[in-house]
Amino acid sequence: MAFLSVLTPVLVAVLCGLVALLFIYPRKTVTASREQTEGGSKAESKRASNGRPWVDQDLEDDTEVTAKDEEEDDWVDSNEENIPHVPYSPLRYPVEKMLERSQEFYALMNQRRTVRFISPEPVPRDVIDNVIRTAGTAPSGAHTEPWTFVVISDPETKHQIRLIVEEEEEVNYRQRMGDKWVRDLAKIRTNWIKEYLDVAPYLILIFKQTYGILPNGKKKTHYYNEISVSISCGILLAALQNVGLVTVTSTPLNCGPQLRLLLKRPANEKLLMLLPVGYPSSDAMVPDFRRKPLEDIVLHI
Amino acid sequence: MAFLSVLTPVLVAVLCGLVALLFIYPRKTVTASREQTEGGSKAESKRASNGRPWVDQDLEDDTEVTAKDEEEDDWVDSNEENIPHVPYSPLRYPVEKMLERSQEFYALMNQRRTVRFISPEPVPRDVIDNVIRTAGTAPSGAHTEPWTFVVISDPETKHQIRLIVEEEEEVNYRQRMGDKWVRDLAKIRTNWIKEYLDVAPYLILIFKQTYGILPNGKKKTHYYNEISVSISCGILLAALQNVGLVTVTSTPLNCGPQLRLLLKRPANEKLLMLLPVGYPSSDAMVPDFRRKPLEDIVLHI
Repeated sequence: MAFLSVLTPVLVAVLCGLVALLFIYPRKTVTASREQTEGGSKAESKRASNGRPWVDQDLEDDTEVTAKDEEEDDWVDSNEENIPHVPYSPLRYPVEKMLERSQEFYALMNQRRTVRFISPEPVPRDVIDNVIRTAGTAPSGAHTEPWTFVVISDPETKHQIRLIVEEEEEVNYRQRMGDKWVRDLAKIRTNWIKEYLDVAPYLILIFKQTYGILPNGKKKTHYYNEISVSISCGILLAALQNVGLVTVTSTPLNCGPQLRLLLKRPANEKLLMLLPVGYPSSDAMVPDFRRKPLEDIVLHI
Repeated sequence: MAFLSVLTPVLVAVLCGLVALLFIYPRKTVTASREQTEGGSKAESKRASNGRPWVDQDLEDDTEVTAKDEEEDDWVDSNEENIPHVPYSPLRYPVEKMLERSQEFYALMNQRRTVRFISPEPVPRDVIDNVIRTAGTAPSGAHTEPWTFVVISDPETKHQIRLIVEEEEEVNYRQRMGDKWVRDLAKIRTNWIKEYLDVAPYLILIFKQTYGILPNGKKKTHYYNEISVSISCGILLAALQNVGLVTVTSTPLNCGPQLRLLLKRPANEKLLMLLPVGYPSSDAMVPDFRRKPLEDIVLHI
């Protein structure tokens, strides 16, 4: 007790220090935890994947803007600062014509279906190029155009892609998805055998560029890159439908890194979608789905 | 000093308590912070906003599959388990016709521009309805159709939306975005004054349904809802362009919760995009952008 008495001033000092630490420490911890979340560290990514099994690292919109980026940023070319503006006067249709066009386009798009039975018949490459040109007209955050379309027609590469996708899909079905998801998908008879990856004349792999690379080697921020590339995919699907080609809108789970390596894509590109493209085979079948009627998807105010 | 000596045992006890707390507290904080991250609480969202200012809570794909969901799931109606399959044989065009159609559609879409000068002239509601019907033909994860299109033509509601968006946008510009982003956007002369929100005959607010509600009140998982709704937006943009209407593809930062409340949308719906829609005004100007040429966006293998 006497010993403790002597130590009392020290104890008071330590006590004050600890109280101070207690107020500082949680803040630090939060910061660290936030950095993990935002940096998309592998561990965090794994954790996220456990709760949301279909969100693999290649489906996260991991654009980064850090203080460092901002400090180091010097990519704004002074020539670009004031892009000149030009008048815009597109074709204007009379009301009757607008109505007619809106009905026709709806009728065309309403015939689109996801088709897993794809014919091996060849498709002109010029058609595919025009479809991709069309996808490239999509808007994008700050006009960054953060997309890369890799078109595979080489049979050997298609087969390697099939092997990668099927291997991962089997694991997904057996382990990752859980009974619920497998049951949901069972209704539309999809499983891990993806014959169409060999058969379709083209596979279009759509990569989002999570950031750009400037001529000086520094990173350029790609705002909203996942939404932008998904919009571009929507326009691509419309373009395919417009020429009578079919596809399967697929987001191969956990295959992104392997496919990126196979196709030698740089680290800033992450796989968003894989579309096998071709004519439907003559015996193509689709589930007898209905779409929601207009009144179930629109609200007028 | 004598007083402190008497207190020594108390001080030692408090000291021990504090040390213990120091070891326990950070763990709790991390857990809490992780829960916040995944739960998308407002506080976490604000914090996340600091690092990635354009990712507000309404832009996170926060579909959740938890063990609880799986255990409680009984939404698979046995009638739905085996949806019948039907033959699919869409219109097939000769090669020359395909080429021509692909070129025409590209030419049409390539004229699309983001236009901030929108005419107040009325647009037939039937055209807007057809455009939204068309957007509703998009594919979606497990055919969940996770979209709601809220179409505003009421001037008072449009004005309230403008007030909400402008207030948040000004904060974004002044505080959240950072010099870098403001500089990037300055190049295309955008700021927080959004006159078109009053002027455009329609505002289309596109909500993603992060989960569905089953008749029994339980949650239905919406796989890939953000990608699905973004694809639907792409098709909607194509449909608008097809009838000669223009829009601004905008993702109003941090306005989602306020707009959702204003429009009385349920908690499972989160704002993904806000599109003012109308004819371009006669004096419309656009930045003199170029799009990347085909060879910069495609790779053939």
